[in-house]
Amino acid sequence: MNKTEVAIGIDIGGTNTVLGMVSRNGKILEKTSMPTNADKPAAELFERIYNEIKILNLEKYKLKGIGVGAPNANYYSGCIETPPNLSWENVNVIDLLSKYFDIPIALTNDANAAALGEMLFGVAKGMKNFIEITLGTGLGSGIVVNGKLVYGHDGFAGELGHVIVKENGRKCGCGRKGCLETYASATGIVTTVFELLKNSNDSVLKNYSSEKLNSKIIFEAAKNNDKIALEAFDFTAKILGKAIANAVAITSPEAIILFGGLAKAGNLLFPFVKKYMEENILNIFKNKVKILPSGLEESDAAILGSAALIWEEISK
Amino acid sequence: MNKTEVAIGIDIGGTNTVLGMVSRNGKILEKTSMPTNADKPAAELFERIYNEIKILNLEKYKLKGIGVGAPNANYYSGCIETPPNLSWENVNVIDLLSKYFDIPIALTNDANAAALGEMLFGVAKGMKNFIEITLGTGLGSGIVVNGKLVYGHDGFAGELGHVIVKENGRKCGCGRKGCLETYASATGIVTTVFELLKNSNDSVLKNYSSEKLNSKIIFEAAKNNDKIALEAFDFTAKILGKAIANAVAITSPEAIILFGGLAKAGNLLFPFVKKYMEENILNIFKNKVKILPSGLEESDAAILGSAALIWEEISK
Repeated sequence: MNKTEVAIGIDIGGTNTVLGMVSRNGKILEKTSMPTNADKPAAELFERIYNEIKILNLEKYKLKGIGVGAPNANYYSGCIETPPNLSWENVNVIDLLSKYFDIPIALTNDANAAALGEMLFGVAKGMKNFIEITLGTGLGSGIVVNGKLVYGHDGFAGELGHVIVKENGRKCGCGRKGCLETYASATGIVTTVFELLKNSNDSVLKNYSSEKLNSKIIFEAAKNNDKIALEAFDFTAKILGKAIANAVAITSPEAIILFGGLAKAGNLLFPFVKKYMEENILNIFKNKVKILPSGLEESDAAILGSAALIWEEISK
Repeated sequence: MNKTEVAIGIDIGGTNTVLGMVSRNGKILEKTSMPTNADKPAAELFERIYNEIKILNLEKYKLKGIGVGAPNANYYSGCIETPPNLSWENVNVIDLLSKYFDIPIALTNDANAAALGEMLFGVAKGMKNFIEITLGTGLGSGIVVNGKLVYGHDGFAGELGHVIVKENGRKCGCGRKGCLETYASATGIVTTVFELLKNSNDSVLKNYSSEKLNSKIIFEAAKNNDKIALEAFDFTAKILGKAIANAVAITSPEAIILFGGLAKAGNLLFPFVKKYMEENILNIFKNKVKILPSGLEESDAAILGSAALIWEEISK
């Protein structure tokens, strides 16, 4: 019997690590998750990962490689470099996994993995030039040019979330001010609501503390025509649309694909991002660039993206 | 006797067209120029180009291809599309030249050609990721990622000059406001001087009309410590440095290479662009990105760049 070829996709998050076995056509055949335990040494996590993979019945599968997605991960060095939500220092993922496996192992950051997953299994199938934007707590991006992910000189390309969009704007976690992700992210829209509430009380959102308010609550309020919530979405779309217009002038993508929690806002977000992008875009790009929702299930995207890294490497 | 292999480089400008025969190692072996005569049909120019090439003693050379650089040229379509300083409508350069030559012919815009010339024959030799910025009347750019020029989905990538850097800023020729090239270009610095002169009269530049003042005069004044001229360079460097910091976050280049008239300002420009870039750059990119002057002679760059397009195509 021919064994099914699979790539293992692993996504290391601040709280949980998920892993799965993914076929060449993007089917998740096995799947599991475990706590990351970021307070313990990273080697401990990779030992548990090894044990989990053993359990997932390797007999049935032919392992083609292991792709890992993680915050602050560098494709070139194979290291997670001082990750923001993990207590580790530099962690060499390739070294740690090579102790257990003698197959191709590759690492990239979560937004790049999402872009690869989108290209192999999502709405970017067949596209050679697009930008994947992940709208979560922050804003991540993976940029594809000529059918290849852009890593740049040092492996850190695609930091669209840290393009400065407002001089002396909001304080960013990176230490600077006015970064795109301080506005266009789940965290950003919460800040926007509190700013808008200073000038108007006419909103159900005034009853929430800053700890309790989140983008989902704002989304629900906007669906009920809450004025402040709608204004917050419009403001977010405006800043994001303008930033996208500038990014288009640089890499001229076929589409911008929005992924993650905030991207679920659908009609409250996409038509407005599109409108503001078109209003601010250079004439030669007008009406050429699509704004699309991701074609990946959010619960599967991390595994699919990480596994895509291997399928992509193999096809090179 | 073995004939020397050459690529023909042609640069079509608003006033003059230059062409030359370039060896694989970037030597210009023959060179000529002619008026573009943009008021006559484009076919007339290409007939003269054909005749000039015949004169340049083809017997000695083996023609490997013809590379053409022109404003608003599209690599994919092979067309110059409604060029700003030429009276032509769309001109299909590949079609027009194919009447006379049965060798590879390729077209790109002047800034992309400059980037290719830089990569093959200039300071970007061996670099895989860099951005070439041409500071002339406007601001053009050619972006190289993974050793390849970025054309994007429709062939118009690399319009860094049309990234909006100031909301409701200066009016741009593209019809929008606040584009980078309205500030960081030979034209931009002249505008800056006139803006600064509104608040201070303490400058030799106050004696010039807007028709007479140019970036060279401002450069000479700055060398003589003229306060307004120095301030104008500082302001230009600041806007350019910030825009570069944002572009770095997207493609993570090894170097930014400045080319063209304004880039001759040397110590009045480069250290300040570097300073403002570093002040505004994301921490992971700090002290990693070089700001370099072009390694191409300005008088040869257009021919070298256009010819590089062919040497680059052939090596694919």
